[in-house]
Amino acid sequence: MKPIRMYDSQISGNCYKVRLLMSHLGISVERIEVSVAAREKRRELLGHMNPAAKIPVLEFDDDSFMAESNAILWFLAQNTIYLTDDPFQQARVLGWMFFEQNNLEANIATARWWLTVKNVGDDYRDHLALRHEAGHQALTTLEGHLADREFLVDNRYSIADISLYAYTHVAPEGGFSLADYPLVRTWIDRVQQQPGYVPMFDEA
Amino acid sequence: MKPIRMYDSQISGNCYKVRLLMSHLGISVERIEVSVAAREKRRELLGHMNPAAKIPVLEFDDDSFMAESNAILWFLAQNTIYLTDDPFQQARVLGWMFFEQNNLEANIATARWWLTVKNVGDDYRDHLALRHEAGHQALTTLEGHLADREFLVDNRYSIADISLYAYTHVAPEGGFSLADYPLVRTWIDRVQQQPGYVPMFDEA
Repeated sequence: MKPIRMYDSQISGNCYKVRLLMSHLGISVERIEVSVAAREKRRELLGHMNPAAKIPVLEFDDDSFMAESNAILWFLAQNTIYLTDDPFQQARVLGWMFFEQNNLEANIATARWWLTVKNVGDDYRDHLALRHEAGHQALTTLEGHLADREFLVDNRYSIADISLYAYTHVAPEGGFSLADYPLVRTWIDRVQQQPGYVPMFDEA
Repeated sequence: MKPIRMYDSQISGNCYKVRLLMSHLGISVERIEVSVAAREKRRELLGHMNPAAKIPVLEFDDDSFMAESNAILWFLAQNTIYLTDDPFQQARVLGWMFFEQNNLEANIATARWWLTVKNVGDDYRDHLALRHEAGHQALTTLEGHLADREFLVDNRYSIADISLYAYTHVAPEGGFSLADYPLVRTWIDRVQQQPGYVPMFDEA
């Protein structure tokens, strides 16, 4: 089973996670750029592969497919240095990735969506305040966890770091200053020094 | 490594998921009931085990511990009938569990929190409207996926069903009617018929 095609978007942190891991692993696939704004079109294009019609969706050479960025990371990282094979440590990796979807992505990506992608920040002021409060709680949790370690789990770079890095490093686009999170900023630098690292946007 | 103690709350769907799987598996642990409302106290009690200070947290007989409900499900279900050992199908199980944290729990649990737990629905009317819209999208996705299957993945009851069941079956407490989701209601019945099923609240 070889991944051959990804339904992708350059501005999506969820898609970027998968692109970053694939770059580390030397996997290259055809990338189909999907508009994240046109929801109905997306349902038509992706619905049979992903009932939630979210991107990324990864297609394989046997016509099978897989949705949900963190599930894709977990699958592609099997038997690589980016995921321990110890079930207990692997559960901790997954734990951070569930935290990412529930506490970090849900707040930072949503605020970034309103502020930077849709440019409707003024209409969503109250909603933004709530997402900022909860997003800062998530960043505070991350900062605290990094107090005595270089990477999130088992002191090695893993898909947990890749997952949380994606939206954390663009948090300022959601109106989150990272000034009060020095350990998070150092960790961001550390991720960017990993072999095979690629930025979110393709270089021109 | 044997689970011995869980930091728990009867009203938390995230805790309930773990209690339900443990009941299926015949695992019993000491349950420490934690107030979900008193956040600061929770940080004091749980912070060293879970930097996000969320429940559930499961403690093992070697003093190790694990946070994040879906990560705990994944760990406890290893080598049981509640989780396939095929990596591709297992990634699909995880995919639904990430969907749960991002699209379902984040909306249904939050609405339920404001309406039923904190009883502050009137102050959060605009916020509720947004959570209801997104939560109904998640329920519509679930309904569509159940059109031609009995369980979420691989046509067998798994931790994906357990995970999504927890907040779906109490969605009405978050102001979500399930009237328009007949397949979801049938699936709820199906989950309740599984051997070892226990309800969310202990029977008096």
